[in-house]
Amino acid sequence: MSTATYTVKGMTCGHCVSSVKEEVSEVAGVTSVEVDLPTGLLTVESDGPVQEADVVAAVEEAGYEVVR
Amino acid sequence: MSTATYTVKGMTCGHCVSSVKEEVSEVAGVTSVEVDLPTGLLTVESDGPVQEADVVAAVEEAGYEVVR
Repeated sequence: MSTATYTVKGMTCGHCVSSVKEEVSEVAGVTSVEVDLPTGLLTVESDGPVQEADVVAAVEEAGYEVVR
Repeated sequence: MSTATYTVKGMTCGHCVSSVKEEVSEVAGVTSVEVDLPTGLLTVESDGPVQEADVVAAVEEAGYEVVR
């Protein structure tokens, strides 16, 4: 099991958080997704290796941006 | 047909707008709902008389507040 963190830009409310969680949860291997709205911190737990690009793409699919 | 306007407080993004539109659309008699996010202006068109209290309750159900 591994944990990776990202910072997401543009979320303004609980609906935004839900959208990000929903999309990132669908990434292969992901077992748990947590989002802290005030800081934009996205914490992704997984069973095995997860492609960072897949997480970034999922965040963008939700309509937000990962800060590099 | 009549049109009433309200000011809604607390909406921060398009998801918020969707929630308000969805709830207010369910109020009896309402035929059209428009929301302007930057100003919070909610415009409600209806076939017949609509109870203001029902619109206010719908906005609150969505998680926001009508400014009086």
